[in-house]
Order: sequence, then C-alpha cells, then structure tokens
Amino acid sequence: MRLYDFEFSGNCWKVRLLLDMLGLEYERVPVDSSRGETQQAAFKAVSGRGQIPVLEDGDVRLWDSQAILFYLARRYGRAGSGAPQAGAWLPEDAVGEAQVLQWLALSENELLYGLARARAALKFGRPFDVGACQREGRAGLDVLEARLAGHDWLVGERVTIADLACYTYVALAHEADVALDDHPAVRAWLGRIAALPGYRAMQGL
Amino acid sequence: MRLYDFEFSGNCWKVRLLLDMLGLEYERVPVDSSRGETQQAAFKAVSGRGQIPVLEDGDVRLWDSQAILFYLARRYGRAGSGAPQAGAWLPEDAVGEAQVLQWLALSENELLYGLARARAALKFGRPFDVGACQREGRAGLDVLEARLAGHDWLVGERVTIADLACYTYVALAHEADVALDDHPAVRAWLGRIAALPGYRAMQGL
Repeated sequence: MRLYDFEFSGNCWKVRLLLDMLGLEYERVPVDSSRGETQQAAFKAVSGRGQIPVLEDGDVRLWDSQAILFYLARRYGRAGSGAPQAGAWLPEDAVGEAQVLQWLALSENELLYGLARARAALKFGRPFDVGACQREGRAGLDVLEARLAGHDWLVGERVTIADLACYTYVALAHEADVALDDHPAVRAWLGRIAALPGYRAMQGL
Repeated sequence: MRLYDFEFSGNCWKVRLLLDMLGLEYERVPVDSSRGETQQAAFKAVSGRGQIPVLEDGDVRLWDSQAILFYLARRYGRAGSGAPQAGAWLPEDAVGEAQVLQWLALSENELLYGLARARAALKFGRPFDVGACQREGRAGLDVLEARLAGHDWLVGERVTIADLACYTYVALAHEADVALDDHPAVRAWLGRIAALPGYRAMQGL
C-alpha cells in the first residue's frame, strides 16, 4: 500500500492513524502541499484533484481522507480481514453508517474550513480570514462537546473512523489559536484517542 | 418521514431529489436558513449543529445531507426494501462505497465551499470572497469533467447518490456566476439527471 502524504496535513494524519492502528504496512510518498507540490504535474497525474492524501492499494487508487478511511475500515477493519489489529471501525447497519457519515461531514466542514483553515493561515500563510475560521471551528467543537459530554465515542460504544476523522484538527487546535478550555469532554476524548494502541503523534512543526 | 428543509438550499434539494426518486412520502418542515432560522432555539433543539437538512425517520434523526443520502440509499434504495422505486443507489462493495464517498467529499468541499458559497454571497448577501469561491468551484468542475468525459455517471455504470450529491450546486452554477461553457460532459450529465424518473426542479428564486 502506498500513501501520498504530508507529515503536517491533518487529513493525512487521519489516514496514518488508522493504518497504524490497524497494523498495516505502507510506503509513504511525501508531497509537500505547503509548497504547492500537489498542484504540480507529477502529482496531478496521480490525482487530478490535486489534493492529498491519496491511497493506492493494488489496483485501487482513492483520493480524499473520508473515502480512504471508509475503504480501509471496510476492507481491513473487519475481524478476520487479515489486518494485524482488525476491529469494528465502522458499523454495518444503515443507521450506524449514517451516524459515522455525519461526523465525517463535520470533519470536512466545521473542522476543515474552521480549525484547519485558521491553522493554515497562521502556520502556512494561507489567505483565509482567521477570525471567521476560528468561529466556524468553535461551532464544530460545540457539536462535539454536546455529544462527548455523555459518551466516550462519537458513534456507539467504540472508537470508529468518525473519531479519527474529527480528531486531528481538534488535536491541532492550539496551532489555530483556538483554546479548548470550554470543551472538557472534547479534551478527555483527545486523551482517549492518544491512548489507543498504534497511536502515533504528528511531528512538531 | 419528516425533512427540515429550505426550498433554496442545494443541500436540501439533494435529499428531496432522492426521496422523490425513491417514491417516498415525507413531510416538509420549512426552515429559512437565509433568515437565520437554523440558529434559533426552536431549530437548535432539533439539531444542535444548526444546519439543514435534518431527516427524521421514526426514532432516527440525522443531520447533514451526505449522511441522509447514505442512510436513505442503504435503508430504502435496495431492491426489495419496500420503496416504490428502489434501485442500486449505493454500491455494496468496499471500493464502490469509497468511490461514492470521494464524490460526497467533492460535494462537501469544492462544490459547497466553492459554488455554493459564491451563490450564497451573490444571492443571499453572505460575506464570502466571490472570486476565491468561484475559483474553488471551477477546480471541482474540472474534476467532474475529467470523470464524466469518459463515463455517464460518477461511480460505476449507474446513477448513485454521488451524482445527486454533486448535482445541485452544479445545476445552480449560473446563480454563482460560473459558466459551464468549458465543461460539456458536465452539462450532458446535468441533462441525464434531470431526465430521471421522479426528478423535481428547485423553484426559481
């Protein structure tokens, strides 16, 4: 398996977390999106969308972190799939699947266009409105807090890909200058995820 | 079934299209997001996220259009599910599912933060950078064009929820002042969707 990957991308980190937690081996192909490498011809030939992460698994090539998480969970996350640490990363019923997709949507909206963009503006000089992004990010944190105040995990009683998808940009909220003081349940949940077997932190910037 | 809905929301329109194409009956509860009704207490009690659409089906309550599309396709889209017009709206294999999720991601990123935000700025006076949103929208259109130049549908050989998810804000691109002159395959695909049984247009603004 091959992952087109940037160490400091929260979207790539989501995928690395699941690969590591499943115990799967993979090759990392570094693509520095902060220096425009995703827009260069070499990478555009891999994915016309021009974004990382991209996963290749035999003949399968997938772009977008949510699609990759879903694929890995379905293909390798089931007990008996052959992955060293398979587990129930994705429910099998229609309601459970849809609940996972709700949180994937939160991660692709409030967290990505809020927290991640505020961080990208502050850390990588991208031209986003930091205040507006921080407000959007805090709206997402409030939704997470409301769920996590009464539950350990976002869907059901176990960790799923919903948790990993929402985790990374929340764990990086300090780089977006967004404090978690008002979100104690979110902070506790960050700790639960960091304690999972296979967890590996992003290298410091 | 009950849908919290705004006629002029492209995200709500996606859900209405699938409900109508499946031949399912539902009650519409109008929530005017352009006038801030999604942020009022009455609606916040329905969904703390404060966004439409929200679907209620018996005990199940779901927010976010991608989660709702996935749920409806899984629950009612399978042959024999009892919906009047069930069909294969969602593949059953890991690769096909993930390919659908790629396009759901495109619809929640380039199309929503590009085309839909440009439209929201121009039609509803929202404070977004129209030029930047139009550029992001065009990047999404290029990804669609590349796929549709060689295929009738976004995933496999049949219409799926991926097509409906990407359809609405592309069909509304003129309201975002984005022309489709350079995207002939996208234009042809819009026509194929509008010709599907059960299709119903958004009322004109």
